[in-house]
Amino acid sequence: MSTETTRIHLASRPEGAPTPDNFRTETAPVPEPGDGEVLLKILYLSLDPYMRGRMSAAKSYAAPLEVGDVMEGGTVARVERSRHPDFAEGEIVLSHSGWQTHALSDGRGLRKLDPALAPVSTALGVLGMPGFTAYAGLLSIGRPKAGETVVVAAASGAVGSVVGQIAKIKGARAVGIAGGPEKCAFVRDELGFDAVVDHRAPDFGQALAKACPDGIDVYFENVGGAVWEAVFPLLNTHARVPVCGLIAQYNARPGAATGPDRLPGLMREVLSRSLTLRGFIQTEFADQRPAFLAEAAGWIAEGHLKYREDIVDGLDRAPDAFIGLLEGRNFGKLVVRVANET
Amino acid sequence: MSTETTRIHLASRPEGAPTPDNFRTETAPVPEPGDGEVLLKILYLSLDPYMRGRMSAAKSYAAPLEVGDVMEGGTVARVERSRHPDFAEGEIVLSHSGWQTHALSDGRGLRKLDPALAPVSTALGVLGMPGFTAYAGLLSIGRPKAGETVVVAAASGAVGSVVGQIAKIKGARAVGIAGGPEKCAFVRDELGFDAVVDHRAPDFGQALAKACPDGIDVYFENVGGAVWEAVFPLLNTHARVPVCGLIAQYNARPGAATGPDRLPGLMREVLSRSLTLRGFIQTEFADQRPAFLAEAAGWIAEGHLKYREDIVDGLDRAPDAFIGLLEGRNFGKLVVRVANET
Repeated sequence: MSTETTRIHLASRPEGAPTPDNFRTETAPVPEPGDGEVLLKILYLSLDPYMRGRMSAAKSYAAPLEVGDVMEGGTVARVERSRHPDFAEGEIVLSHSGWQTHALSDGRGLRKLDPALAPVSTALGVLGMPGFTAYAGLLSIGRPKAGETVVVAAASGAVGSVVGQIAKIKGARAVGIAGGPEKCAFVRDELGFDAVVDHRAPDFGQALAKACPDGIDVYFENVGGAVWEAVFPLLNTHARVPVCGLIAQYNARPGAATGPDRLPGLMREVLSRSLTLRGFIQTEFADQRPAFLAEAAGWIAEGHLKYREDIVDGLDRAPDAFIGLLEGRNFGKLVVRVANET
Repeated sequence: MSTETTRIHLASRPEGAPTPDNFRTETAPVPEPGDGEVLLKILYLSLDPYMRGRMSAAKSYAAPLEVGDVMEGGTVARVERSRHPDFAEGEIVLSHSGWQTHALSDGRGLRKLDPALAPVSTALGVLGMPGFTAYAGLLSIGRPKAGETVVVAAASGAVGSVVGQIAKIKGARAVGIAGGPEKCAFVRDELGFDAVVDHRAPDFGQALAKACPDGIDVYFENVGGAVWEAVFPLLNTHARVPVCGLIAQYNARPGAATGPDRLPGLMREVLSRSLTLRGFIQTEFADQRPAFLAEAAGWIAEGHLKYREDIVDGLDRAPDAFIGLLEGRNFGKLVVRVANET
């Protein structure tokens, strides 16, 4: 067992896109668990767009990190040493330990995972927070009906891929937006979306309109920016827009938005087309999580819910992988393998 | 009985605020009802902000008027002559006959009114479309809980006055926004709102914040513009915004919105505060209308739902009264008395 633990801290707040300078790696001796504590060895670290928000000082639904804090994030870990009655050494747990190789825990917030049921890394993706975000936002806010058109961007990613596939399961038409021919082929051929549009294509807006001949009834918003511009004119009367993320905006510098002012036009269309815009985070739907886990496991077993992971080896590569995530460089759910499972 | 009927037509589309030139008055002989028809004599014409939208060519939830059409609008009328088996001469009905003194009808869409139950003009206001708009939007979209803060502008008007009073009935705190000391006093002292803020006051934003010490949980949007600017920072996490109207925008010239672009900031806050924006028109909640009529009549009888009408005499004054409505000159539900009831 290693005697040293590595941690990646927020060194400074990014202005615009994060750079390697915003992160600082530190090492320390592996800590000893006290009475009632466990020592966790991190196996997988999830990298997700929301982390960009935590790096800024702006108020959001969660408090921002302080400069100097360990970067936060969901993790899958093995109990390395236990002085807690409920946890045995060798057990695999879901934790929120952040960007580090080891962590102490008093057991609160840990959830045991059964490696026989599914690869444990899926607890960070299709069976974890991203999958549940897709499930709750699509079904509770988007409420797609059979035959309706559901559009989602970042369609090869952790959330978008699940949105489109659940839309299909519910009998809706799923139209994905992805960047580049490889991702588009995956969304169409592997995930089984009805249509896919490449947002990098010069005729993106026209191509999206062509892919949605009956307009858009549900737009699951996770990117914002140019995709929103193309989607907005296509929204049908009574369209629902669960707002889950705005990755295209996360790196914008404060005050950088310039005119013309699109707010009055937005409100006019919200009114005249009876649109619903609804921001959410998955935690508010926590009571649906058991139903999600049961349903999603069934859909995976039946082949209706597929997933792809983009696994990066080594905690030291987390900053670069995260920077790439905000640029759309990853292909599938981005996970850092911090240590080998065996 | 007069032998001449007067009609007010859309003469031209307004650019910005409507002017008298946009309307044209014509006269014609009173028409004869054919078999299965009634001749209606209009008693009251409702003037409502939505009519401004109908005067423009822009697509909205209803088709625009064509230039030359009779101006549309809800009316209360007396059956003057009947060749329809279901209607007797002298009966009072709610119709949608528009800006004219007489109208023919085949009976479709007419609803009989009982003058003994309530003044028949209330079928255009507190017991009509505006009252139902308030009821449906507040209860189905706003969903105020006891103790929450509900804010509504144009609080002395046909919709706003009902929004605040139903909020009170449901145990919420009602904060009204109105223009000028007379309307503010009415909202506070007669309608019983918990607080009222004058949007003409130079410190309006600060005064609104002071009137909402616990933030805003429901903002019933019927004005837009500067009121939205003051409300937006005060919206609590999970606030609901039924979007019913945008009267401050209706007279804006197309393309007149200038920067900075507030759309990205709006979307960011929709996301981080889990806000709901939901445009609607009351017709989509039509199945709730019987419940509304029963409940509202009860609330009026119990003294919990008060109303004020601003009655203008003579169809010829409708254009000027309508122009004034868009400027906030009316005080209470604006109704034109087209003919005396007796």
